[in-house]
Amino acid sequence: MNYPKISKAIIRRLPKYRRYLGQLKRQGVEKISSNELSELIGCTASQIRQDFNTFGEFGQQGYGYSVNYLYDEINKILGLDKEYKTVIVGVGNLGQALTNYTYYYKIGFNIIGLFDVNPKIIGNKINDVVVSDYSDLEAYVEKEAIDIGIITVNRENAQAVADTLVKGGVKGIWNFAPIDLKVPKHVALNSVHLSDSLHELTYMISTMEHAGREDRD
Amino acid sequence: MNYPKISKAIIRRLPKYRRYLGQLKRQGVEKISSNELSELIGCTASQIRQDFNTFGEFGQQGYGYSVNYLYDEINKILGLDKEYKTVIVGVGNLGQALTNYTYYYKIGFNIIGLFDVNPKIIGNKINDVVVSDYSDLEAYVEKEAIDIGIITVNRENAQAVADTLVKGGVKGIWNFAPIDLKVPKHVALNSVHLSDSLHELTYMISTMEHAGREDRD
Repeated sequence: MNYPKISKAIIRRLPKYRRYLGQLKRQGVEKISSNELSELIGCTASQIRQDFNTFGEFGQQGYGYSVNYLYDEINKILGLDKEYKTVIVGVGNLGQALTNYTYYYKIGFNIIGLFDVNPKIIGNKINDVVVSDYSDLEAYVEKEAIDIGIITVNRENAQAVADTLVKGGVKGIWNFAPIDLKVPKHVALNSVHLSDSLHELTYMISTMEHAGREDRD
Repeated sequence: MNYPKISKAIIRRLPKYRRYLGQLKRQGVEKISSNELSELIGCTASQIRQDFNTFGEFGQQGYGYSVNYLYDEINKILGLDKEYKTVIVGVGNLGQALTNYTYYYKIGFNIIGLFDVNPKIIGNKINDVVVSDYSDLEAYVEKEAIDIGIITVNRENAQAVADTLVKGGVKGIWNFAPIDLKVPKHVALNSVHLSDSLHELTYMISTMEHAGREDRD
């Protein structure tokens, strides 16, 4: 697989392409042109062709793309042809929701460890995985060669958890705490800032209300 | 409040500025220059000044910004000086996590309705809110003048839920289903695609592993 230097914007679009191709697969669609795909996704056909060309030849001009082939290739580019040994740190509602979410979707994320500091939670089982004591995290990550650590603790403790995961040797961190974590360059980091997303929504609502008022004035 | 036409990129940065300013507030910092803020956030000072200038005069050249004032102004721009009547549709783990999340943060999101189709869940209480029958959703949204509907149902049902929320008259939808919903132009929509975010992470991990191999070759 060829990994050229590509922009964050393309990285954001790839999972979206994958989602739509997965939908087409489920609908039994076998072939699709970049024009049809662009209408479905809501971006230009030339952007789609350009994005795909970044990674190689995925179709023949004029014949459209094979949905199955394209889906598999994008999976490979996204690293979804592998299994990832994963731990979740912080087993509150969100941690539990993510456990069930990834469990349900069975997309290569093997959650084999759950960690918390709360003695009331330690020892509980979620989807057959026992919640372990947070103080055992670093040794566990190292011993089990964990790939991904998911952080669902609060803002105050998130950086310390990230440091522990890095010391243990994770390759990537998926962070849900509302803070921008610092990790070394060799560790991948992606954050889901739920409050940021909610605030974008209220911004849009406020803008629309204002526009609506101006229309009536 | 002046709402100029602004790019999606700025909308994404505003909640981030708010997060850092909130942190500075908690640390008791009163004044900050755009240079200090840029170092903290990791973008250029000129970008920060430009972003703020889009919305008006927030500070005097050379004197820095008042942290409290700036925080309050950004809150106003983001519409966080208001309360939002909110319902959650789909009371699984994720719905429950969001109920607790917004409840805990007390940031103006008043979750007054929870809805589900599962008779085993209907009637349960979460944070003093009773889970209601999904079939009552539209009437409830209309009667209570609900502002925001949060969708945490599965992909297959998400569009139908969105249509019902729109019919009831919501101003905005916060969607967690892995699908791009269609809503009329007067309704705000923001989606959190968890799987997209996870796939971005695995992409980064794959790229880094590849780069690491090349370094060793």
